[in-house]
Amino acid sequence: MTPVTERNSSKQTLADFKVGVDNAIFSIDTQQNRLLILLVMRHDEPYLGYWCLPGTLVRNGETLETAADRILAEKIKVDNLYLEQLYTFGGPGRDPREAADRYDVRYLSVSYFALVRYEAAELIATGVGGIAWYPIDKLPDLAFDHRQIIEYGHQRLRNKLEYSPIAFDVLPELFTLSDIYQLYTTVLGEHFSDYSNFRNRLIKLKFLEDTGIKSSRGSGRPASLYRFDPVAFAPLKDKPLLFV
Amino acid sequence: MTPVTERNSSKQTLADFKVGVDNAIFSIDTQQNRLLILLVMRHDEPYLGYWCLPGTLVRNGETLETAADRILAEKIKVDNLYLEQLYTFGGPGRDPREAADRYDVRYLSVSYFALVRYEAAELIATGVGGIAWYPIDKLPDLAFDHRQIIEYGHQRLRNKLEYSPIAFDVLPELFTLSDIYQLYTTVLGEHFSDYSNFRNRLIKLKFLEDTGIKSSRGSGRPASLYRFDPVAFAPLKDKPLLFV
Repeated sequence: MTPVTERNSSKQTLADFKVGVDNAIFSIDTQQNRLLILLVMRHDEPYLGYWCLPGTLVRNGETLETAADRILAEKIKVDNLYLEQLYTFGGPGRDPREAADRYDVRYLSVSYFALVRYEAAELIATGVGGIAWYPIDKLPDLAFDHRQIIEYGHQRLRNKLEYSPIAFDVLPELFTLSDIYQLYTTVLGEHFSDYSNFRNRLIKLKFLEDTGIKSSRGSGRPASLYRFDPVAFAPLKDKPLLFV
Repeated sequence: MTPVTERNSSKQTLADFKVGVDNAIFSIDTQQNRLLILLVMRHDEPYLGYWCLPGTLVRNGETLETAADRILAEKIKVDNLYLEQLYTFGGPGRDPREAADRYDVRYLSVSYFALVRYEAAELIATGVGGIAWYPIDKLPDLAFDHRQIIEYGHQRLRNKLEYSPIAFDVLPELFTLSDIYQLYTTVLGEHFSDYSNFRNRLIKLKFLEDTGIKSSRGSGRPASLYRFDPVAFAPLKDKPLLFV
């Protein structure tokens, strides 16, 4: 922090900020193999009628996390939503209100990230505001720099899939190895890995339990249904892991 | 962002912020096996005489990154310093100036992270301000929540060591496998891995080139000197990797 004297004596004046929080809430529709992002429609200027991430400005006495939780509680009902800080965007000119505001106040955005189970999340529609899951590859025009925040969030999600067992939070309780592969393909893109390499690597990690049950879906040979085994995973929890 | 109407009508008033940037600059003294953090001494209230991370408040028209670069340029000379955003701390009460300020302005800090080569970094001492590399395990009392920022930065550094080739940015050009192991031990702590496992894993990654030269340091058998091979590493650049 700059010492107070510099603040007073410098000809360069300090910028004043309002601070917003914006939530990049991702989900994966494992039936249709779509990676989704939660958007709400703005019903005020600026960007009236545009879609944006659910966000709000931080109030007196409120932490950043409280503000992020407050706005999400108005938009979505889901158990065990864990918000993780994503990135802070704070350059001048990122909000058109800046130019219009005679006090020259800047708008900084601290973004948060979460991945939620698609079937378990219930959207809350209010009288005026639209709300929707949008496929990441078919985004509408977005307000502010929210497209950039979403791209940053997508990159974070790719990294998490590579290094952490986050996929098992959004898969159904029982799944085939092909289901996991499909989920990874949905997030990482085609050709991220050869299926048999991926399959071998997963099995070697030793925390997928073969239930003995066969899946009757699809037209091919019935596939084994697996379950994530938290007990087998526990000793690996704080170790570096590689999933792809 | 909250729409304008809510801003005007809500009884909850929005918080006003000054935004600071604080740089967590780490280095590794590979001779003495010490993990270091760059600290400067404050010469104004609050926390007069305390050590803190080199930081400053963001000025009008300045991006967060420009502010972070500006203050670092005053404190340290080093080539290829790449700042990466670390975390944003913005809860109420994190800066004592808040309470004293009759305008109720809050102070948010966006922290940045870098790892620099110890021998290549030249500290810049000014007339009044102290500056020093402090070993991470012998920190003095710090201003603000900077101890928390440093802990967060240390965790980021651990993760980077596990998943990226950042260690080769700070090792000398020629090193033994034992030098790398020692560097990992300095950052990750004792017993992070068995030496022979670590060694085998590194060699399997196939981007360390045995120069054929032997190290004459130490009392034991002369060890081979290796060099990081950027050409062999290039195809792996965007692949997930595991170093430990």
